[in-house]
Amino acid sequence: MGHGTNRVEDMASPNNGTTAPATANARETIVEIHSVCLPPKKTAFQKLKKRFGDVFFPDDPLERFRNQTWRNRVILGLQSLFPIFTWGSQYDLKLLRSDVVSGLTIASLAIPQGISYAKLANLPPIVGLYSSFVPPLIYSVLGSSKHLAVGPVSIASLVMGSMLSESVSPTQDSILYLKLAFTSTFFAGLFQASLGLLRLGFVIDFLSKPTLIGFTAGAAVIVSLQQLKGLLGIVHFTGKMQFIPVMSSVFSHRSEWSWETILMGLGFLAILLTTRHISMRKPKLFWISAASPLASVVISTLLVFLIRNKTHAISFIGHLPKGLNPPSSNMLYFSGTHLALAIKTGIITGILSLTEGIAVGRTFASLKNYQVNGNKEMMAIGFMNMAGSCTSCYVTTGSFSRSAVNYNAGAKTAVSNIVMASAVLVTLLFLMPLFYYTPNLILAAIILTAVIGLIDYQAAYKLWKVDKFDFFTCMCSFFGVLLVSVPLGLAIAVGVSVLKILLHVTRPNTLEFGNIQGTQIYQSVKRYREASRIPGFLILAVESPIYFANSTYLQERILRWTREEEARIKENNGSTLKCIILDMTAVSSIDTNGIEALFELRRRLEKQSLQLVLVNPVGSVMEKLHKSKIIESLGLSGLYLTVGEAVADLSSTWKAHGQP
Amino acid sequence: MGHGTNRVEDMASPNNGTTAPATANARETIVEIHSVCLPPKKTAFQKLKKRFGDVFFPDDPLERFRNQTWRNRVILGLQSLFPIFTWGSQYDLKLLRSDVVSGLTIASLAIPQGISYAKLANLPPIVGLYSSFVPPLIYSVLGSSKHLAVGPVSIASLVMGSMLSESVSPTQDSILYLKLAFTSTFFAGLFQASLGLLRLGFVIDFLSKPTLIGFTAGAAVIVSLQQLKGLLGIVHFTGKMQFIPVMSSVFSHRSEWSWETILMGLGFLAILLTTRHISMRKPKLFWISAASPLASVVISTLLVFLIRNKTHAISFIGHLPKGLNPPSSNMLYFSGTHLALAIKTGIITGILSLTEGIAVGRTFASLKNYQVNGNKEMMAIGFMNMAGSCTSCYVTTGSFSRSAVNYNAGAKTAVSNIVMASAVLVTLLFLMPLFYYTPNLILAAIILTAVIGLIDYQAAYKLWKVDKFDFFTCMCSFFGVLLVSVPLGLAIAVGVSVLKILLHVTRPNTLEFGNIQGTQIYQSVKRYREASRIPGFLILAVESPIYFANSTYLQERILRWTREEEARIKENNGSTLKCIILDMTAVSSIDTNGIEALFELRRRLEKQSLQLVLVNPVGSVMEKLHKSKIIESLGLSGLYLTVGEAVADLSSTWKAHGQP
Repeated sequence: MGHGTNRVEDMASPNNGTTAPATANARETIVEIHSVCLPPKKTAFQKLKKRFGDVFFPDDPLERFRNQTWRNRVILGLQSLFPIFTWGSQYDLKLLRSDVVSGLTIASLAIPQGISYAKLANLPPIVGLYSSFVPPLIYSVLGSSKHLAVGPVSIASLVMGSMLSESVSPTQDSILYLKLAFTSTFFAGLFQASLGLLRLGFVIDFLSKPTLIGFTAGAAVIVSLQQLKGLLGIVHFTGKMQFIPVMSSVFSHRSEWSWETILMGLGFLAILLTTRHISMRKPKLFWISAASPLASVVISTLLVFLIRNKTHAISFIGHLPKGLNPPSSNMLYFSGTHLALAIKTGIITGILSLTEGIAVGRTFASLKNYQVNGNKEMMAIGFMNMAGSCTSCYVTTGSFSRSAVNYNAGAKTAVSNIVMASAVLVTLLFLMPLFYYTPNLILAAIILTAVIGLIDYQAAYKLWKVDKFDFFTCMCSFFGVLLVSVPLGLAIAVGVSVLKILLHVTRPNTLEFGNIQGTQIYQSVKRYREASRIPGFLILAVESPIYFANSTYLQERILRWTREEEARIKENNGSTLKCIILDMTAVSSIDTNGIEALFELRRRLEKQSLQLVLVNPVGSVMEKLHKSKIIESLGLSGLYLTVGEAVADLSSTWKAHGQP
Repeated sequence: MGHGTNRVEDMASPNNGTTAPATANARETIVEIHSVCLPPKKTAFQKLKKRFGDVFFPDDPLERFRNQTWRNRVILGLQSLFPIFTWGSQYDLKLLRSDVVSGLTIASLAIPQGISYAKLANLPPIVGLYSSFVPPLIYSVLGSSKHLAVGPVSIASLVMGSMLSESVSPTQDSILYLKLAFTSTFFAGLFQASLGLLRLGFVIDFLSKPTLIGFTAGAAVIVSLQQLKGLLGIVHFTGKMQFIPVMSSVFSHRSEWSWETILMGLGFLAILLTTRHISMRKPKLFWISAASPLASVVISTLLVFLIRNKTHAISFIGHLPKGLNPPSSNMLYFSGTHLALAIKTGIITGILSLTEGIAVGRTFASLKNYQVNGNKEMMAIGFMNMAGSCTSCYVTTGSFSRSAVNYNAGAKTAVSNIVMASAVLVTLLFLMPLFYYTPNLILAAIILTAVIGLIDYQAAYKLWKVDKFDFFTCMCSFFGVLLVSVPLGLAIAVGVSVLKILLHVTRPNTLEFGNIQGTQIYQSVKRYREASRIPGFLILAVESPIYFANSTYLQERILRWTREEEARIKENNGSTLKCIILDMTAVSSIDTNGIEALFELRRRLEKQSLQLVLVNPVGSVMEKLHKSKIIESLGLSGLYLTVGEAVADLSSTWKAHGQP
């Protein structure tokens, strides 16, 4: 077999020198062998500290405080606690004008949506307006996003409504239900703030995008089906959320369908969907879809007012109390039979609203190229919900649809949230009686228009095209939510995602490598036709950490590779196999089971007179190999930095010993 | 900066040709760039089939059947179902002699241990002997290990005893307790056989070695403490298993301590421990420790018989029924309140006994260099337990201590199990009355001697030295079992192990690479002092798959690397950063979240006028990158096969455009 040089010229190092000059007789020069070094020594404590830092402080939050005077540190500290200090001093009239325009625009959306979403959570409509007043004010002081429009959102409202109403009837036990809603909101806030404080923000990463796409679509379908009550004018509707009971309830109450309601509802629905469609096609016309809900409310209220004496088929909101948010801290509920339910609802709505709020914040921050700090956002959203739970608000977060409108309307800072809150304040103080005749059907139509956009079938189709398993996860969460229940559907999807990680670790890929002729490159022989096997060697790459979960499998798999290779050689009358080279580049971690498997593998290969050689173990793996003394037991020619060096050195040794 | 050649000579390919001859003016030649190819095209079905094969048939069980005549296939099929056919035809007198010696040796251990372990499981002593008769016979036909000595074992006996006696009293409800024990055994067998049939053998891999070391040690301590009852002669002992209640029960019943029992117990314990110690030091003297339990039983029984009229302080076994295993299929219990308990106990004892049996089988198979097929062993052990549950046996598996004696006594085939079963048969038919005066203290001493060897503190110390996290897992399972409960301790340890995998995926390592001068090798600059950064480039290696669980983290971490690198450059007045090279060699998998993170990263780097380049994505990753069109969006110079080629090509391009 070809025994050659390992001469590689200096190529891109700063000091144009060539360390290994090309000689005429290059093929006879000695192979240059680089030793594999251990990573710099660290104590167990240092390692733990680094690991701790990586896990909890990957963003290095204290970096900005280094090399600063104490005065600056205090200012920086205040700014990082209250981002309003970062931009507050530079705030001017021009920014204010933009913020007022965008603030009023989102207010015109927030008022009808607030009322509608509160109904979705089975809460009195006024709670939706309360929730659009206090939380935005708090967020504008604590939050770091400039475009997030804060208030109630459809998914969290739906989840809270469905989870609480399974145990407590919102109509018969309305006070208890309200208490539980505020308590859940409190726990949601507590959970969110703790995640931020404990820097456990990565928990929300476990809700992967495919899970969320499926979940959101499933929830949107459920929400849409619930709106059939309002749109068809049904009075006795099921309290359940799943597809089958809702559909059967719709058709079993056909006698309650009211044609006036259906006609008016479909009319407004058509208007709302058309305006939404126009704005989606031309983002500059965002105001059309932004203004249409309020306009529809006004027009439909007028219509109902005008025909109030002619028909009673169309149900309307009725009396709403005037005035600011009443305090509700006395309604929080910290003991009793329903506490577990409140905590569970709080955690699930908390994590869902957090995911939405942070995703929305990141989306718009990335468009304008500023940073939104995940952990800080969690604290802001958490505190805003805890404060909200004491002022008659239910769970709130950054809404995707309103934030998009906010962004398009030219919002520059969180002041737009303050403007919106002021508009809601005016409504609460003076305009509540005007909603007396607002028909329920228009609320249903507004919700339907909002949630229909959440069914992202294009994203699902893309998942199918790019990654079948992700599509499977997405479908699990979609059907889980639609057919089983909201928390269980979510749990199934998260379970499937985690299972995928475990499965990948349990059955990792191993590849046979070959040399690409004329280079030092070794690549998969299956994938690169130019890559050819090297006689006497079997070069395998393991594509995963070696853990307890896969150490037995890998050991068996490598022995099977050896068997297959020997059969192949026999068939082709090739030269005998002498050495198994294990490329460890992609083995990012190893545990004691993995090390034992390597020992065992070496022992079994030795019995077949095969040598085992390890190539390029990464730092942490090298350290453990060293500590467990496997390196010593492999011998001098058992560890190389590159596959090329291993092949060159071993084959020249064999040549020196007169082996073929 | 140095712009050079990427000329590497052919080194070890079979056809001694040099594809890139060394020219005198080498430094001016064009860089040879290799394109990254896609893996061979496969349909989704083909991929699923391959994945399925990898997960369920990693050992390619049908390989042997290929290219065979039908006659041979039938023979091979029979051999693989009943391994006895593999060696049966070559069995001769010489082998038989070895097997008879070893079979009788393990019988002398199995009889006293069988009686003792049955007491550990709170079962009548005779059940322990029944269990040493039927299961070994079945295993000798179905099992593929030649050295496994089958029968009741301490851990599974303890777990069954502790789990069942928490709900049902073995003294007051003895019939129900017996029924539950047989039912649990049936479910254990069913579970084991199903794991084998469904080829889900990897489930037992999730009990990692550290978990098992801790668990076994914890269980051994619990078992030892339970023996205080027999050794101290306590009559009213607690039914609980945890450390604290047992110790308080021992000391609160000090009045029941009997000095005769203590004296005799400690005497025999000392003898047993000494003989065990001798055999451990000199494996050739294995027969000393193998014979001592039976000898102790005989001597102590004689002693008690002689002093039977002088004292009643020493409790003894009493009457044992004579005769063969009675059928017990009518005692299986498939409905009622305790069914869930029986299933749970069955699954836990099943998985534990399976783990022990397979580990023991593999250990001795590896010493004699033959293969033990995991899935087949599972079926053998499973069927033997299902059959056992119908013939008055409780859960059995391969015992470590008896298998070691079997191996040392020269066992050659599974016939030694048949010999042992025959010895047990003779005992059951004729010798049972001889055990009437066997004192309980000797059973306690035998159990103590057997389990003390299971506390492997040296292995725990090695874990501490090599891998702190594995040590932590080990301690979790040790203290979990000791202080909480057996199944919960096990669950905690498995949870911790899985959490480690998830944590590793959630916060993967990223490394900065530099070039080792004079080579094409790129390695971590922190680890290799020879590796130097290349001006204008930041070369990062990601050491993990990119998944939903880490995509956000990686994106942020890479941006932080960029910030830090720019700060470093500013400090040293280096040349501006222009390109981020991401070495994807160790990224063994990617999902849609990961791809989106790459898109987003590219977008954010572009805003800072930085180019993103990917290097050497593995096959499956490349496929997804291609499908998601990210390769196209990165442009022509966005993907290279090696870091060296990327650096060389990009810097020559910059030079051509007149950039520094």
